[in-house]
Amino acid sequence: MRDVAVIGVGQTKFGELWDRSFREIGIEAGLQALVDAKLSSGDLGGLFLGNMASGTLLDQEHIAPLILDYAGLAGRRLPAVRVEGGGASGSLALHQAWLAVASGYYDFVVVGGAEKLTDVPDATAAQITSSAADHEWEVVFGATLPALWALIARRHMHQYGTTREELARVAVHAHEMGSKNPNAHFRNKLSLEQVLNAGPVAEPLGVFDCAPLSDGAAAVVLGPMDLARQHTDTPIQITASQVACDTMALQHREDLTTLDSTVSAARRAFAQAHRDPRDVQVAEIHDAYTISALVALEDLGFVKKGHAGREFASGRFAPGGAVTVNPSGGLKAQGRPFGAVGVAQVVEIVRQLRGEAKERQVPEAMVGLAHDVGGTGATSVVTLLERVN
Amino acid sequence: MRDVAVIGVGQTKFGELWDRSFREIGIEAGLQALVDAKLSSGDLGGLFLGNMASGTLLDQEHIAPLILDYAGLAGRRLPAVRVEGGGASGSLALHQAWLAVASGYYDFVVVGGAEKLTDVPDATAAQITSSAADHEWEVVFGATLPALWALIARRHMHQYGTTREELARVAVHAHEMGSKNPNAHFRNKLSLEQVLNAGPVAEPLGVFDCAPLSDGAAAVVLGPMDLARQHTDTPIQITASQVACDTMALQHREDLTTLDSTVSAARRAFAQAHRDPRDVQVAEIHDAYTISALVALEDLGFVKKGHAGREFASGRFAPGGAVTVNPSGGLKAQGRPFGAVGVAQVVEIVRQLRGEAKERQVPEAMVGLAHDVGGTGATSVVTLLERVN
Repeated sequence: MRDVAVIGVGQTKFGELWDRSFREIGIEAGLQALVDAKLSSGDLGGLFLGNMASGTLLDQEHIAPLILDYAGLAGRRLPAVRVEGGGASGSLALHQAWLAVASGYYDFVVVGGAEKLTDVPDATAAQITSSAADHEWEVVFGATLPALWALIARRHMHQYGTTREELARVAVHAHEMGSKNPNAHFRNKLSLEQVLNAGPVAEPLGVFDCAPLSDGAAAVVLGPMDLARQHTDTPIQITASQVACDTMALQHREDLTTLDSTVSAARRAFAQAHRDPRDVQVAEIHDAYTISALVALEDLGFVKKGHAGREFASGRFAPGGAVTVNPSGGLKAQGRPFGAVGVAQVVEIVRQLRGEAKERQVPEAMVGLAHDVGGTGATSVVTLLERVN
Repeated sequence: MRDVAVIGVGQTKFGELWDRSFREIGIEAGLQALVDAKLSSGDLGGLFLGNMASGTLLDQEHIAPLILDYAGLAGRRLPAVRVEGGGASGSLALHQAWLAVASGYYDFVVVGGAEKLTDVPDATAAQITSSAADHEWEVVFGATLPALWALIARRHMHQYGTTREELARVAVHAHEMGSKNPNAHFRNKLSLEQVLNAGPVAEPLGVFDCAPLSDGAAAVVLGPMDLARQHTDTPIQITASQVACDTMALQHREDLTTLDSTVSAARRAFAQAHRDPRDVQVAEIHDAYTISALVALEDLGFVKKGHAGREFASGRFAPGGAVTVNPSGGLKAQGRPFGAVGVAQVVEIVRQLRGEAKERQVPEAMVGLAHDVGGTGATSVVTLLERVN
């Protein structure tokens, strides 16, 4: 298998993009990435598109050739495929693309992620969010995705003494970071009091503990490492890409406070890259809910089980800490267009490793991690990226 | 890249399976394939699942880990991914799985395809069928998938003199074949008169020119050729797997009577396998509408452009002819559970190449082809399979 590098990145603003269609935002991100990669369409081998719910959101399936077509790339009859795994769709598409290039079968491919959540009523979009949980055994009984994550939060508080304030600090951090990201859905800062006093969604989680429903698209171009320097002075190598799955329904898990899929994917990823969590300077992790981020930091191995709340509050995961987490603002502030999330995480990590992240730059970042979750963790994907000098 | 073989196959009955859920049929097909492959779950590396529309049909996305979970396989935290490309979802999943094994990264994987179309009203299912066409430029103006294929039929009749009777003979053949397939949705034979006198759907296509809406699932196990003989005496090698995409909307095609995506995928596949159409004894081709089969036979290179109607009527594609087409009954008679179709095609070809197809066995079949289409051909997938002695 060949070494694979990211040689181009692109991303739209995340937010309520009412003036632009799904296909428009998909194309904008993809073409940005192609230009950034100095790749002509003639060199492109295929498209892998992460998207969760275009069928229910847009009455449109079969969207990978649609994006290829509207980008003006149908003429070469390239392969295009959509990949879906709930909120982890984008990083699953990246995994398939990484495999395709690593195999030697494809040279250069685009990985896109796109979702348009604000063209339907909020209640519809919220319902669609829950279609990543187990419909027959969770959703029909009234459980929503935030309600399921609230169960995880309650148990984490009970078992490890995690506090309501510690959860809230995750949101404060996210908005602090988002304020420096021009692509972020939310650029306003939040105070601890604002988070704590916000109306409840599913207790203990309030409105500001939950990531928004966003429109947005992101794209990266992958190519073999040995051709990458023809396209960029700073190829960013994908040193690990690992997918792991767990039970759909929470009730079948041994421990509510840990996502075994994240634990497995992270262990395999660090082994694949011959790295450990201490080598990572910057990480984009799944914070669809504030509790998600704390659980992720533990499951990824950045902190001991049960300690994430206090360590987060101590500033360990803020700029200047051991690892800077979610410099993009994460799902909470940058936004949460399902299928685009995993790709946008990699876009941010690549910008950080290239030293192009401006105001939010993590100094001397050489190793980065992206962590994407579907539902309550039936799918987790961990990607490790490194700057190669 | 390694040679890849199919070492196990499984399939449920296709039809109106009201007594069984999506997850149940998915598991039935998958476990059949694992047993057929003499593979213990401990040897399994991952799951690739083809499905078009579980979100709109079942309010359930994120279905790959769901099937893994309900098959009792969540414990090993395997990777599972859903692949979607309209009606070609199943063969796209096969393509991703082939790539995964060929790369050397995975050894044994299951490719599943499943769809449950009869749990929603027929009108809903029909509408979902059209979500594989271009929603913004075709469907909102009233075009349905059969209407779009009817345009192709009209143009083919105008340009090449194809007759209404020639179209109808495709359906007669499909039901003749389906009558020998215990898994087929329809096992009744149809006379030419019945097809010609059926009510119109989108003229010239009548009810019996259109494949049904079916429930069903199919699965195959792939493994590296060099390990295949530990599992089966008759490994069937995948000698080519090619995907090609075209414009979504018909109005952007140069020629309505040909699917350029099929032409490209077929050319690449025959080049990859060092074969040509004359080497093929048995083919499962896309016959969602009778015209689809005629166009496919031409685009795949089995017959000169414009001649498929007459050659089909002459018996060239029936048992005893040059190539036996759709011995399973095809989409028309075996059934059309979108995401399962492409996988079921490969199941049938493998059974034919193994010599296990009983009443519908094509004598001395050594090379087989499967051809799967999404929408009106924005995606085509061509797979070549060979028995290796």
